[in-house]
Amino acid sequence: MAYKENYPSALLSEAVEAISSLPGVGRRSALRLALHLLKQPAENVHHFTDAINHLRDQVCYCKRCRMISDSEICSICGDNSRDHRLICVVESVRDVMSIEATGQYHGVYHVLGGIISPIAGVGPSDLNIKELTERVRGMEAPQEAEIILALSGDVEGETTAFYIYRQIENSGIKVTSLARGLGFGDDLEYADSLTLGRSITNRQVFKP
Amino acid sequence: MAYKENYPSALLSEAVEAISSLPGVGRRSALRLALHLLKQPAENVHHFTDAINHLRDQVCYCKRCRMISDSEICSICGDNSRDHRLICVVESVRDVMSIEATGQYHGVYHVLGGIISPIAGVGPSDLNIKELTERVRGMEAPQEAEIILALSGDVEGETTAFYIYRQIENSGIKVTSLARGLGFGDDLEYADSLTLGRSITNRQVFKP
Repeated sequence: MAYKENYPSALLSEAVEAISSLPGVGRRSALRLALHLLKQPAENVHHFTDAINHLRDQVCYCKRCRMISDSEICSICGDNSRDHRLICVVESVRDVMSIEATGQYHGVYHVLGGIISPIAGVGPSDLNIKELTERVRGMEAPQEAEIILALSGDVEGETTAFYIYRQIENSGIKVTSLARGLGFGDDLEYADSLTLGRSITNRQVFKP
Repeated sequence: MAYKENYPSALLSEAVEAISSLPGVGRRSALRLALHLLKQPAENVHHFTDAINHLRDQVCYCKRCRMISDSEICSICGDNSRDHRLICVVESVRDVMSIEATGQYHGVYHVLGGIISPIAGVGPSDLNIKELTERVRGMEAPQEAEIILALSGDVEGETTAFYIYRQIENSGIKVTSLARGLGFGDDLEYADSLTLGRSITNRQVFKP
């Protein structure tokens, strides 16, 4: 049944409103979560909200790769044992975490912060693409370097990959994309470690 | 796949930890929610956490029925058009909202704040049962009043109903329970409005 929305308290109603603004959380789940929080000791609830506020207010992005970081340069970009001439371009922070979890990649990353999507109103200028082209331009001997376009296999991913390819093709850098061991249209995020790891290893020359 | 838990930022890791402490939210969903919040404007995130903090810090419970309320006496107890000699005893705030949503009940409530459950370590003294017996004791002509034990049909619900019945049987008040239009073992919360409304209307004399 749907609750008729007669909340007994404006405070409860506002909390439910706020919680149900999260993606995938309906009003019924939001009410359940609000009542759960209400039963917890106040310090637990404050710890919960503080953790979220701290994340939002204090988070840094790596100056080089735009990954979430606690410092100006993230731990991956700051790691000299990694191959800094191999840049894996991904849509999001989650994708970095997914690829790191495979343990099969030892280069660095560039996080776009989204994907080109005319429907969602996201254009190239909303993403960290300019930062990527500047990174490539700043490289010595780019012909010995490589960019892996590790984007999802859907239309937006292909469009973004093509756009980036156009921006950097004159630099002489080698451009590859993930091996299509990933099923077409699959979201990178849901791939299993083995498939994702193989598709990093078997990456192919980008053919637009 | 399970993420290996290498969070790129301690702030992110703490936020994921906090969010995954919510019931029914795993670490993967928590990461998704944390990254979602990170993309929102700071004022939206602060509004979200403020709403939760305000709920936890400022919420009142009605002095009479222990329902969540914005004032000392809730809007139901403060409503003179309702029948104050008819008290519906429920486990939780959600149950009040469910029954109110049926539109078929015009008495008042008493929220126990839980159910007797030896396994969960919840005894009668952890619930608002003493407040209920005092309410009954304070009544003029209790034999003209009625208490509806609107508790779930499982063992804990039956145990709680029996315990309350024992506490008030000498007062002369009429004690009823919900009509068993509800399936046995069903949670009150998941009943549809029609069944729940009928079971309020067809309530039966409590036979322990």
